[in-house]
Amino acid sequence: MATSVGFQGERGAFSEEAAYALFADDLSVACGYDDFDALVAGVEKGEVHYGLLPCENTIYGSIARAYDLLLEHAGVAIVDETVHRIEQCLIGTEKAKVAEVEQVLSHPVALEQCRRFLKQRGLRVVVVADTAGAVREVVAKNDARVAAIGPRFAVVQYGGSVLAESIQDETENVTRFFVISRNPGARRNLGRLCLAFVLPHRSGSLYEALGAVAGRGLNLRSLIARPRLGRPFEYVFYAELDCPAEIDAAALARTISPESRVLGRY
Amino acid sequence: MATSVGFQGERGAFSEEAAYALFADDLSVACGYDDFDALVAGVEKGEVHYGLLPCENTIYGSIARAYDLLLEHAGVAIVDETVHRIEQCLIGTEKAKVAEVEQVLSHPVALEQCRRFLKQRGLRVVVVADTAGAVREVVAKNDARVAAIGPRFAVVQYGGSVLAESIQDETENVTRFFVISRNPGARRNLGRLCLAFVLPHRSGSLYEALGAVAGRGLNLRSLIARPRLGRPFEYVFYAELDCPAEIDAAALARTISPESRVLGRY
Repeated sequence: MATSVGFQGERGAFSEEAAYALFADDLSVACGYDDFDALVAGVEKGEVHYGLLPCENTIYGSIARAYDLLLEHAGVAIVDETVHRIEQCLIGTEKAKVAEVEQVLSHPVALEQCRRFLKQRGLRVVVVADTAGAVREVVAKNDARVAAIGPRFAVVQYGGSVLAESIQDETENVTRFFVISRNPGARRNLGRLCLAFVLPHRSGSLYEALGAVAGRGLNLRSLIARPRLGRPFEYVFYAELDCPAEIDAAALARTISPESRVLGRY
Repeated sequence: MATSVGFQGERGAFSEEAAYALFADDLSVACGYDDFDALVAGVEKGEVHYGLLPCENTIYGSIARAYDLLLEHAGVAIVDETVHRIEQCLIGTEKAKVAEVEQVLSHPVALEQCRRFLKQRGLRVVVVADTAGAVREVVAKNDARVAAIGPRFAVVQYGGSVLAESIQDETENVTRFFVISRNPGARRNLGRLCLAFVLPHRSGSLYEALGAVAGRGLNLRSLIARPRLGRPFEYVFYAELDCPAEIDAAALARTISPESRVLGRY
């Protein structure tokens, strides 16, 4: 079956790398979206079968915007997840050497992640909007003194060559992605449940809500408190649980809070 | 008393604007640091009396790195907090008009926050590393066709003029800052407590830990789960509570978890 998968970023981005790692030969079309909003909307409209939405990174923590979008778009559900290691590479023109490089292009977050590498070599940095776009620009410039920081996968897309690999300060840089679809059936059954719920702003309300989870002996994998837009310092919670097939997810959600919704079972 | 305050960013950044709003005439020296790590280390070394560390934003949610740094640096404590509204302004050369502007410089996050404004006017964007730096650059260029998106306060620092104000898509864009110091005494007593704790990775452990909070009738203001660096998908928790003066914070922390620490009482 020809499977199409959406991701956020330019062609050659880390998210596209993750999509190819997960779907492998099943992936026939990868489609880059400008931002997370457009990606989730595209999946909801059926432009692609699946979307890869980053939800957590070992350095940055939860990506709260991803959960908010799942709550806003009732027409998509989480159907699977995947984890992908972020390996920042120094990518230059063909035959360039690390010692020749003077200037490095990348997104501010990638530059920040590789601060030690850049400092030790006294490299000048230029901020651009996208890591894969940085590789594209460097290949087009074709100057051995100019390199980019970005994903190895961008070389497949744009050419150039990897001059140094895994140059980020923290070796453990893993991103977790939700696989989302307009078809709510799980792609793989991992025994997970993701819920959104609103709680009254009073002492003990979260404790009581979690009692419904602990009382069933279910393991809480992650919990996120999010400010509600337009209501500063009021919160919506997102919880991910280990949830065996025999548990009625809708009933559990109602027990936690009357204002709740299942975002996916996978 | 002459009070010195550190912030992250270039002179004229939103964080410096927040420092002046909080300390007003008491503030004699504001000192910009390159990144959060350098800011917290500078406060710990006593380079400045206080530091302003952003910990939450109504659009982005918790800024987990801020909490991690407080856990890493035992020599600083939270002694106060302040909230500051982020008003993105279009800042151009003196006497420029909005209709003349063709190109806009700013940090990717600020550009993202003002997407509607930029789209409606078909403005070309240029990514730079800092909002205040964008204003500095625009004033130096002195071309009415080039403007920046950044804080009103940057005009005090660099000149130029505000061409349009509050141009962000979401009107509610508020950042909360911790005020940190090497002197752990509260600057103002708001009846708050911030704790860090590690929990075993088993079902019900968070529920039990929060029982110690709910059992004392204390209100949980925020709760953050953070992956532990180098141990993917293991967690450290940060909790902020309303905590009256008669509560023994150290004893409460020990009840929640033997692996815990008070990050501040303010």
